[in-house]
Amino acid sequence: MSRRGLLIILSSPSGAGKSTLAGRLRTWDTSLRFSVSATTRPPREGEVDGQHYYFVSEEAFREKVNDGGMLEHARVFENYYGSPKAPVQNAIEDGCDVLFDIDWQGAQQIKNSSLQDSVLSIFILPPSITELHRRLVSRGQDAPEVIEGRMRKSWDEISHWDGYDYVLINDDLDQTEAQLKTIISAERLRRSQQPDLVNHVRKLQSEFGERE
Amino acid sequence: MSRRGLLIILSSPSGAGKSTLAGRLRTWDTSLRFSVSATTRPPREGEVDGQHYYFVSEEAFREKVNDGGMLEHARVFENYYGSPKAPVQNAIEDGCDVLFDIDWQGAQQIKNSSLQDSVLSIFILPPSITELHRRLVSRGQDAPEVIEGRMRKSWDEISHWDGYDYVLINDDLDQTEAQLKTIISAERLRRSQQPDLVNHVRKLQSEFGERE
Repeated sequence: MSRRGLLIILSSPSGAGKSTLAGRLRTWDTSLRFSVSATTRPPREGEVDGQHYYFVSEEAFREKVNDGGMLEHARVFENYYGSPKAPVQNAIEDGCDVLFDIDWQGAQQIKNSSLQDSVLSIFILPPSITELHRRLVSRGQDAPEVIEGRMRKSWDEISHWDGYDYVLINDDLDQTEAQLKTIISAERLRRSQQPDLVNHVRKLQSEFGERE
Repeated sequence: MSRRGLLIILSSPSGAGKSTLAGRLRTWDTSLRFSVSATTRPPREGEVDGQHYYFVSEEAFREKVNDGGMLEHARVFENYYGSPKAPVQNAIEDGCDVLFDIDWQGAQQIKNSSLQDSVLSIFILPPSITELHRRLVSRGQDAPEVIEGRMRKSWDEISHWDGYDYVLINDDLDQTEAQLKTIISAERLRRSQQPDLVNHVRKLQSEFGERE
């Protein structure tokens, strides 16, 4: 019996460091894969299909949702975003864990999906709102009104912190990265995550039998 | 609201390395305490009351059991052994975790006690029975017939491995020690183990309020 992987959900308000942390985990462990979202919005410059997103038509997206092919999905303004189920299913059946960089609504949908037994959820809080704002500004990516829009959405996201298994305050990136690795490593040591143990115990039992 | 500590149960057959590992954890973290068992057997040379065991009379032991003052207890041949509840209760209310070095029957009793919500259980398996035997012999403590007695009890203990939250195969002491620390560190990052987070989120909320 081989191990079935975990669905590891990482949520946080924008600016709390989630994407940086997810990026650091990419190079950590080959048995950790990343869920690539599908979207109907057009690619931005430099975005690669299948890497940053799967870029699909609205028709194809709707069809996938209707066929039960999306683990979670949402409409944000005029665009759809979702997590395709098939790559996740393949990865966990191969014994790999899958990391999701999604918001609380997506997390909720995955926790109510057919894969709910394998879900592990982690919420990342900022040390302060001043710091959250500072990080959004220092990225230099967004216009002031976009930053204010993100700030307004932040409280909505933070207010769902208490639906998560683990909560980290990202005061220091290195420490939070280490904590994420600790959580994932520990979860892999759960009995339920080590189906091969049955074989080990059978081996011990037969060794006992030979001693009698 | 301050944190309530965990009851961390460590079980294994004798010779799997449990006591060595527990000893290494002693010097690791000041917020990890050790449950000292009470026993009616007389102290052996070098054993210190309150450190290795609490040495008590059979009458005092029975009285404590009747008063609900033992988290778990058992009779082994003509002696009683048990885990006094009061020091554990005090430690976890101080926010300290408490480590128990007990067998599966004691573990079962603690899992059915009033403190069951705070229990975390870890089972340590030997890499092989040959190795288990080798470790018992190499200790040089016990006569061959005592070792054979321990070996017979080993399978009984191992056969309860599947009632534990986490299971480790102690192939390499350093690795198993690191895994134990990983498990304890991760469990402390659970939302339910960080009641102070409520204050942090309230602080964030009031910061948002000031921005409006």
